[in-house]
Amino acid sequence: MAVNLNHPVGLKSVVGIRLAAVEANLRYAGRPDLCLVEISPDGAAAAVFTRNAFRAAPVLIAQQHLADNMPRYLLINAGNANAGTGPPGMEDAVRCCQALAELAGCDTREVLPFSTGVIGERMPVDKLTAALPGLKDRLSPDNWLLAAQAMMTTDTVPKAISRSVVIGGREVVITGMAKGSGMIRPDMATMLAFVATDAIISPAVLTDLLGDSTDRSFNRITVDGDTSTNDACVLIATGASGASVDTCSPTERERFRSVLLEVMQYLAQAIVRDAEGATKFVNIKVAGAASDRDADLIAYTIAHSPLVKTALFASDPNWGRVLAAVGRAGAETLDIERVDIFFDDVAIVRNGAVATDYDESAAERVLAAAEFGVRVELNSGGEQAEIWTCDLSHDYVRINAEYRS
Amino acid sequence: MAVNLNHPVGLKSVVGIRLAAVEANLRYAGRPDLCLVEISPDGAAAAVFTRNAFRAAPVLIAQQHLADNMPRYLLINAGNANAGTGPPGMEDAVRCCQALAELAGCDTREVLPFSTGVIGERMPVDKLTAALPGLKDRLSPDNWLLAAQAMMTTDTVPKAISRSVVIGGREVVITGMAKGSGMIRPDMATMLAFVATDAIISPAVLTDLLGDSTDRSFNRITVDGDTSTNDACVLIATGASGASVDTCSPTERERFRSVLLEVMQYLAQAIVRDAEGATKFVNIKVAGAASDRDADLIAYTIAHSPLVKTALFASDPNWGRVLAAVGRAGAETLDIERVDIFFDDVAIVRNGAVATDYDESAAERVLAAAEFGVRVELNSGGEQAEIWTCDLSHDYVRINAEYRS
Repeated sequence: MAVNLNHPVGLKSVVGIRLAAVEANLRYAGRPDLCLVEISPDGAAAAVFTRNAFRAAPVLIAQQHLADNMPRYLLINAGNANAGTGPPGMEDAVRCCQALAELAGCDTREVLPFSTGVIGERMPVDKLTAALPGLKDRLSPDNWLLAAQAMMTTDTVPKAISRSVVIGGREVVITGMAKGSGMIRPDMATMLAFVATDAIISPAVLTDLLGDSTDRSFNRITVDGDTSTNDACVLIATGASGASVDTCSPTERERFRSVLLEVMQYLAQAIVRDAEGATKFVNIKVAGAASDRDADLIAYTIAHSPLVKTALFASDPNWGRVLAAVGRAGAETLDIERVDIFFDDVAIVRNGAVATDYDESAAERVLAAAEFGVRVELNSGGEQAEIWTCDLSHDYVRINAEYRS
Repeated sequence: MAVNLNHPVGLKSVVGIRLAAVEANLRYAGRPDLCLVEISPDGAAAAVFTRNAFRAAPVLIAQQHLADNMPRYLLINAGNANAGTGPPGMEDAVRCCQALAELAGCDTREVLPFSTGVIGERMPVDKLTAALPGLKDRLSPDNWLLAAQAMMTTDTVPKAISRSVVIGGREVVITGMAKGSGMIRPDMATMLAFVATDAIISPAVLTDLLGDSTDRSFNRITVDGDTSTNDACVLIATGASGASVDTCSPTERERFRSVLLEVMQYLAQAIVRDAEGATKFVNIKVAGAASDRDADLIAYTIAHSPLVKTALFASDPNWGRVLAAVGRAGAETLDIERVDIFFDDVAIVRNGAVATDYDESAAERVLAAAEFGVRVELNSGGEQAEIWTCDLSHDYVRINAEYRS
């Protein structure tokens, strides 16, 4: 049961992007699990990948291919991560790219593979390649929703969004899709996300835009602190609109950056809203820190604390658990007598101890909602951090104890 | 349901130590929740405390008192942590010590207060002090088990053990008790633990012995990564046996150190065995690391991963989750092509990928047991780490969502 997350509506196609999805029965039956994204020949792309030292075979291959060429195809499967599979897994990933390249008449290095699913099992390459002709035949600009569905694993809701922005008098579209529900702790880009625009953007600007927007979206979420081996986020600019982000006015470029960030933040937050077992969507803000590092440490320590997360699940304003998490985060500058903590606007802790005007019933009302904020004011400096997370429920344990079985 | 943890039997009294426990109804009804430990006048004591920046009032007071005096009394309550209570909480802790000191005819600074329970509520000082006369009247050398019971919060089994060792031809007793079940992530000493011996040990040696043995026991366990505000571990030497650890032979001193470590490790492991919702007791060993830090980082990242912990709960050899945890731990030296992973003696991963001889049914048999080991061989150096942890079950969520309600 996702928290305030609706099925995507009003998705706009991006000129220069065609998509398709089919049932390849790689692991799941009766649902699409293989997806193809075709990029027009003059499109540009940038990507960020997981920082997990155990990068899956498709991540390593995609990084190699992207270093040499602009991609023409993204080949994405769900159900099998092709991770922890060693050299045979690398060969499997390359074989999939080769099969598509032959079919499409492009270079193997123009295909980027992406996989999500169970770690450590060999990819059923024959099943995958057998599905490619039918997949290619179905390419259409209108298949964003279907493609988003084909990427899902434990996701319960497909995640996609479109926005538009006017640049140089022309409407530019940004459409993105993402998957992710567990093993979510960003350390670059967590999960799979693909965002495309028909604006003209040079590779250097694209890389800058992607880095900036992932740092403020996908790198600001956590479900369980576990960074996946397969995460990737790709930003594509087809240029088909004829409007250029490279040469537009600074105001328009800021506007584009801001709408791109809106798309990325929507998708990042959608992952948390649809997190495994989540019943609450929680915004954690740490302000007044002496350093970025202190703010991040405290925010993530709160977000990862099983005791805080279970209290949020229970709608129990057990703020002592938040305070204990702040205290153990390892912040370099922490004057506990200056620490204030709020649930939304309800003051819980002031000057490091329970607030004299603390109203438990008011705190309970905040936590009874499906969305709320936990705010920590350190009053020790000017830095801050904001991240999004969820609670830890019975269903998280059920889902993760049952997944694979 | 604790994992392979029996009720303590055969507890031996320690000459020079008397204990008592009564029902003070501080939070719990129908069970002892207030406990007193009396130390003979010539006893020595050393203590380590939580490194959480939010140290509870009793921790701060105990540290102050211990800096000035050897303690005569330890006053321990369950149900209220007196943490996050600011200056009024400090006054409450001092008032409790004063009341006992008046009754016992000692200095207030000879009383150390210890509290465990809910954070952020004022201590019911009147109830506590009203119970002190009855408590003092019941002091007896034989009350170790009752005292261990009085400290329990979400613990399901009292934790205590006795061992003896011969020094200079005399039998020396070591008896200890501990409480702890959740909010367990050592950062010095987690939980409450009190260990006493009738050996003669000078304060300096006592401090050394305590530091060494907590580093290898209580600082090697984790349940949920949450460090409490109230943790403390106290080691007392009454000297009543007449046998001196200060002046005995090096062999005897090593023997004493080793038996003390056995007591500390038993108590530390008992906390994990009785961890909230635990169904598995898991030994995590990381060997072949380039540094202690790398070994610790990887061991704790595995132990804290909710995905690993839920897979252990499900007895599912989903080793990909272990591999992903190793990869994201942030080790400085990690050559993934050298990493081997074992469940007990079953090779799961060799050279960074699924072992060619991997036998899933053998792995399932290992994980079906209530106790097993996860071993990671990094093959990158000579350092290692060993910690003890448990799985993450439905009951952990239930207990922590319901606690306080």
